[in-house]
Amino acid sequence: MRDLSADARLLSLNTATIRERWGLAEAIDGCVRHGIGGISPWRDQVAALGLDEAARRLADTDLAVTGLCRGGMFPAADAAGRQAAIDDNRRAIDEAVALGAQCLVLVVGGLPEGSKDIAGARDQVRDGIAAVLDHARASAMPLAIEPLHPMYAADRACVNTLGQALDLCDVLGDGVGVAVDVYHVWWDPDLESQIARAGRGGRLLAYHVCDWLVPTTDLLLDRGMMGDGVIDLKAIRAWVEAGGYGGHCEVEIFSAANWWKRDPDEVLATCVERHRTVV
Amino acid sequence: MRDLSADARLLSLNTATIRERWGLAEAIDGCVRHGIGGISPWRDQVAALGLDEAARRLADTDLAVTGLCRGGMFPAADAAGRQAAIDDNRRAIDEAVALGAQCLVLVVGGLPEGSKDIAGARDQVRDGIAAVLDHARASAMPLAIEPLHPMYAADRACVNTLGQALDLCDVLGDGVGVAVDVYHVWWDPDLESQIARAGRGGRLLAYHVCDWLVPTTDLLLDRGMMGDGVIDLKAIRAWVEAGGYGGHCEVEIFSAANWWKRDPDEVLATCVERHRTVV
Repeated sequence: MRDLSADARLLSLNTATIRERWGLAEAIDGCVRHGIGGISPWRDQVAALGLDEAARRLADTDLAVTGLCRGGMFPAADAAGRQAAIDDNRRAIDEAVALGAQCLVLVVGGLPEGSKDIAGARDQVRDGIAAVLDHARASAMPLAIEPLHPMYAADRACVNTLGQALDLCDVLGDGVGVAVDVYHVWWDPDLESQIARAGRGGRLLAYHVCDWLVPTTDLLLDRGMMGDGVIDLKAIRAWVEAGGYGGHCEVEIFSAANWWKRDPDEVLATCVERHRTVV
Repeated sequence: MRDLSADARLLSLNTATIRERWGLAEAIDGCVRHGIGGISPWRDQVAALGLDEAARRLADTDLAVTGLCRGGMFPAADAAGRQAAIDDNRRAIDEAVALGAQCLVLVVGGLPEGSKDIAGARDQVRDGIAAVLDHARASAMPLAIEPLHPMYAADRACVNTLGQALDLCDVLGDGVGVAVDVYHVWWDPDLESQIARAGRGGRLLAYHVCDWLVPTTDLLLDRGMMGDGVIDLKAIRAWVEAGGYGGHCEVEIFSAANWWKRDPDEVLATCVERHRTVV
């Protein structure tokens, strides 16, 4: 028999899921109220509450902070822009440490304004992470490179497959790993083997769930609740577990027309139920 | 000096680009009028004009028929559905022969209704192509597997990278190759090496161009005119040429809000100009 209450302890709420209606303080209280074991806040929500206050409120709970969203966005059209990104990522590392986060999630960035050079953007990502890696290591804060779906290659992240993210980890060495989000990688014919590779390398830092709807009506804001789409969540979860991942399933749903409009308590209750039944 | 008039002879019009306002007869006349050297019609447009009439009109021109769109859509929820797809693909092969097409383009299909088994869908694609391959070979009609962007994995094509398509070609043997459409593959970190692999294997059957807009506002119908987006068209064209491809650049633009609304003569003139300057 599975221990269902223990299940919710291994669920984490990415606060993007309820961001239209709750700030971080309400999200923390909501997770506790619903027996959800983890939370992954966004930096703007942390800033709105105040970093010290956010850290204090989190420390007053048993919530695991499964990640801080997000660092990254390294490519820029000029050296000043790239340096600004590096400086911002150093601050993000410090914030992640202050919050006791398990990792800093990196959405690495896409093409600089006016550029068509995706290989060059990828080089800038590598160099940007390298520039902050000593600080991350000294802070004992793992950096979780999140490969994003190829439909975001131009404007959000030019790291687009798990294999590519792991190649980058191999180049960079210790202190970096990957955040596997089913929305971004479910289609990948190499997914099972690359998850196994990530496990062997000790690179599996975070696991994010939602679902891919058919039809999908918006490139960014039409993610589905687990179970409402076509992703074989149990299969991917099994691969991740076989890779040695024992952490939380973090729910991250951008859904402007549906879940963002609902009562966040209903959203959290649904997450708990779906986590138990279909994840 | 480049021979600019010769350039347009190596341009082909995929008739989806002007399908809202022109039928196939007007499209054929338009290509001739603009000095465009090739055309790639869709089966519904061929059927609307009549297969024999379409073949006659094409034979009266010097237009290369760079492909027939499209076969594929192999996965189905039951055996009857899969057999219907196989039968339809055999008819598509016959139509491609009747039109003198250089290949039959395959958009292979996505998940069957109610399925989350993408590996199973991929097996069905392999088996479906295998089932029509003897007929294709006997008809001397190459089948061009078109890997589609991963955002179409669920509902249009579960072959999503060039490498995956070439793996499929390796399994299937002679008589199959790939259609490389920049819209679907531009983001792929392995693109250059996989194009080279396709060239070595004699698998490069077609090359399609358009552009990726930033932002992209619709998953299906917001493709850009060459030069209006972020794809490094000249780089990819150079890789394709280095792979031994000497055929046409086929323009295929789904653009409900922009190009489909314009006068098709303006669209064709723009294609000719952009082909000369940015492709």
